Amino acid sequence: MSDVDLSELIADLPAQMVVTDPDILAGYRQDRAQDPDAGTPLALIRPTTTAEVQTAVRWCAANKVPLITRGAGTSLSGGSTAVDGAVMISTEKMREFTIDTATRTAVVQPGLLNAEVKAAAAANGLWYPPDPSSFEICSIGGNVATNAGGLCCVKYGMTTDYVLGLQVVLADGRVIRLGGKQLKDSAGLSLVKLFVGSEGLLGIVTEVTLRLLPPQASACTVVGTFASVREASEAVLAITARIRPAMLEFMDGVSINAVEDMLRMGLDREAGALLVAQSDAPGPAGVAEVAIIREAFESNGAADVFDTDDPAEGEAFTAARRAAIPAVEKLGSLLLEDVGVPLPALPDLVDGVAAIAAGNRVMISVIAHAGDGNTHPLIVFDPDDADEHDRAQRAFGQVMDLAISLGGTITGEHGVGRLKKGWLPDQLGPDVMELTATIKHALDPEGLLNPGVLL
Amino acid sequence: MSDVDLSELIADLPAQMVVTDPDILAGYRQDRAQDPDAGTPLALIRPTTTAEVQTAVRWCAANKVPLITRGAGTSLSGGSTAVDGAVMISTEKMREFTIDTATRTAVVQPGLLNAEVKAAAAANGLWYPPDPSSFEICSIGGNVATNAGGLCCVKYGMTTDYVLGLQVVLADGRVIRLGGKQLKDSAGLSLVKLFVGSEGLLGIVTEVTLRLLPPQASACTVVGTFASVREASEAVLAITARIRPAMLEFMDGVSINAVEDMLRMGLDREAGALLVAQSDAPGPAGVAEVAIIREAFESNGAADVFDTDDPAEGEAFTAARRAAIPAVEKLGSLLLEDVGVPLPALPDLVDGVAAIAAGNRVMISVIAHAGDGNTHPLIVFDPDDADEHDRAQRAFGQVMDLAISLGGTITGEHGVGRLKKGWLPDQLGPDVMELTATIKHALDPEGLLNPGVLL
Ligand SMILES: Cc1cc2nc3c(=O)[nH]c(=O)nc-3n(C[C@H](O)[C@H](O)[C@H](O)COP(=O)(O)OP(=O)(O)OC[C@H]3O[C@@H](n4cnc5c(N)ncnc54)[C@H](O)[C@@H]3O)c2cc1C
Ligand SMILES: Cc1cc2nc3c(=O)[nH]c(=O)nc-3n(C[C@H](O)[C@H](O)[C@H](O)COP(=O)(O)OP(=O)(O)OC[C@H]3O[C@@H](n4cnc5c(N)ncnc54)[C@H](O)[C@@H]3O)c2cc1C
Repeated sequence: MSDVDLSELIADLPAQMVVTDPDILAGYRQDRAQDPDAGTPLALIRPTTTAEVQTAVRWCAANKVPLITRGAGTSLSGGSTAVDGAVMISTEKMREFTIDTATRTAVVQPGLLNAEVKAAAAANGLWYPPDPSSFEICSIGGNVATNAGGLCCVKYGMTTDYVLGLQVVLADGRVIRLGGKQLKDSAGLSLVKLFVGSEGLLGIVTEVTLRLLPPQASACTVVGTFASVREASEAVLAITARIRPAMLEFMDGVSINAVEDMLRMGLDREAGALLVAQSDAPGPAGVAEVAIIREAFESNGAADVFDTDDPAEGEAFTAARRAAIPAVEKLGSLLLEDVGVPLPALPDLVDGVAAIAAGNRVMISVIAHAGDGNTHPLIVFDPDDADEHDRAQRAFGQVMDLAISLGGTITGEHGVGRLKKGWLPDQLGPDVMELTATIKHALDPEGLLNPGVLL
Repeated sequence: MSDVDLSELIADLPAQMVVTDPDILAGYRQDRAQDPDAGTPLALIRPTTTAEVQTAVRWCAANKVPLITRGAGTSLSGGSTAVDGAVMISTEKMREFTIDTATRTAVVQPGLLNAEVKAAAAANGLWYPPDPSSFEICSIGGNVATNAGGLCCVKYGMTTDYVLGLQVVLADGRVIRLGGKQLKDSAGLSLVKLFVGSEGLLGIVTEVTLRLLPPQASACTVVGTFASVREASEAVLAITARIRPAMLEFMDGVSINAVEDMLRMGLDREAGALLVAQSDAPGPAGVAEVAIIREAFESNGAADVFDTDDPAEGEAFTAARRAAIPAVEKLGSLLLEDVGVPLPALPDLVDGVAAIAAGNRVMISVIAHAGDGNTHPLIVFDPDDADEHDRAQRAFGQVMDLAISLGGTITGEHGVGRLKKGWLPDQLGPDVMELTATIKHALDPEGLLNPGVLL
């Protein structure tokens, strides 16, 4: 690939926009999944406009050069990992936005961070709900491409529920607009929805129109510690059977200790599991929800239940939960799972994960967006111990097999990327895989967009 | 087409399932849009199982016979109109369902009526929100195929927001399952979402897994009458700028009178417009929302504002709004619009529609799911007056042109069907039309499913 002539591309884009400096390229090889098999891109482009993206895509199409789109590189499934000889388009400089309070929408370039969208909305008295734990470091384009979830999505839905319109550069370089600021639109196929969650396989998102909401009512936070993960997951079911909490998050003993090591906030190191729930129902309805949550905690053996109306206190526990992945990462290298199951299977899933950990002699810490059955078993291994690495890899697959056998999914929100595609056929079956390939082929016949992802 | 040999199809399906009696077929030619150009099907099939649908689809594929899927035939855009020589599959006998309270889901066959899904959910202490005005007479399969909206979708979303899983028979007869009971699933392309709203073009939905919610809190209804549609639509904006009401519906003077003729409930016949709003926020939050709604009504000149906590009284006004289409239909034949605009353009849309009515000397009654900018201008004409019919047709197109020029859509919820497809390219543009055709072709290369719809 090294004999590809970049001169036309360089000439067609602003000066310095095409980067081939190996030191800089090295920083764009891996995403947060840290795949050791990441390739080295031919070149990096950091466009600021849709037209520049279009120029790059056209050049790639003409020269049959593969193209990887990268947002902020926080993918946990190898979605934005480089492949050898590809052009890497990083959206990090596409950061413009406007907020329209009349239509209650935001129009944003994809490189804006989720937290920046939230802040811009808040500055206009509005709220952008989706809140992946990585919200301070991930881009809105990445969120759209993975249909990111988060903590509040148990009540407020996924990224797809907030995407009203898209501008997309297709594989052949054409630019299309889909949807817009209208709240309802049934004209034609649901193409906005198809592009959301398409992991960069069908096109490059260069602009997003987002629905914003009036501000969230202030929330009450309820925290409980449990002797075992099983009890905590039974408490989750007792809550979701009756109400839709605004948050319902889960940490196991390993992650509690890892977070406590990092944040020193006084979490109970002896606890087997911790649940953090929120209700944002106003007035007496909120009081009733908090009572239901407390009751569910207590009747499932919670040792210590405490609730608070204080936003700062509530945020401290939410932040603790969000810190779980980076905290557990300090214990070793991680293989990150994202398996989800129908809610009643949650206790079986956590038990099964414990059995897989024991069977493979690896540590697996489980954290979860428990309220929607989406868990993140974090498999910890010593990267220098080849045998442990093998066992971790085996456990990685077994956890996905378990989720599938429980009627669930190998990924609730992180996407399949490159790291989970081996298990996708087991979940979807051959016909749905073929349908997926058919659609991919129809939109990107040369297979230049994000090769190696999903298919 | 009349020389197509049906014997193999007849042999492969249960006795009497293939209907060719012209009297029965006649009842399946038109849908609620009453297109006079409807064709006559070759045969009608009313399967009860996915396997029977599959048999019919395979036979059609082998014999290159087009196939129209029909739910309850309440389409207002000619989506389930017959074409000559096609096989018509009616889902009316596919009516099985199960409710799973543990996962809070319903698994239903497509022929079940929306109202029956609601009732089954309610019998289990749960709620299925989507509520098209036609909820008592339309099927869940039709709702899925059109991504139906309704009155509560201003707060609770469209059908797509409740579809977790689908079983679909593809154009070649393969049966696939997409999604399931898990609340979050990012494994693969968003195919569930692609099939929702695909108007029967990509496959036949034979089973739907629906998300249910805990019961809705009791609502307070606020009703206001206005001198003009302009004032009422300004009041809508004043409300949506501050809160998300649980309902925000609009009727103009013509529809008020038509409904009053039909229901005799004491509506103000002098009013230029009526708004029906609801808040289901509990306790003091609901009181605050009702105050905001009242204030918005009064500061925009509402003559008569009244609110009620009584569910029966609230339902009477909701029923009045739902009765608007059948009531206006008594005034003449209708061309039914479904145009939507970004909310701030709503007053311009209603003014523009009035100008189009005047310019073409036709009566246009406007009703609307006003809270999300989705309006139904109903163009009334005398079917025996050819000149008026022509003027009505001209107005029909002009209203869609107007919506597009205001940055809106030709259809917010009814779908494009056969009657609006002439305007679709103006809204989507050539590239998106081509993309649509590409996806259709990839999934149904022979173009056998619902020919004439959308493309
Ligand atoms: C500590 C931590 C916590 C996390 N918690 C959550 C969580 O709670 N919920 C959750 O959903 N995820 C979570 N994630 C995963 C990750 O942050 C999300 O997947 C996020 O959406 C990725 O955004 P990004 O900008 O980093 O995208 P990248 O990693 O750069 O890319 C992700 C995928 O999107 C594609 N892509 C990016 N931009 C575009 C574009 N403009 N057009 C087309 N394709 C594009 C890429 O090709 C790739 O396939 C977490 C990650 C970390 C590190
Ligand atoms: C008085 C009145 C009020 C209405 N109010 C509303 C409203 O508030 N909101 C709204 O959204 N709509 C409304 N409608 C329109 C209509 O009821 C909806 O479009 C409804 O979703 C159609 O359902 P159906 O079962 O009658 O479908 P049909 O009319 O039989 O079919 C509609 C489309 O769906 C396809 N289809 C049906 N079943 C399947 C299946 N199983 N698989 C694949 N494709 C299928 C058909 O081919 C066709 O393209 C109203 C209609 C009337 C008459």
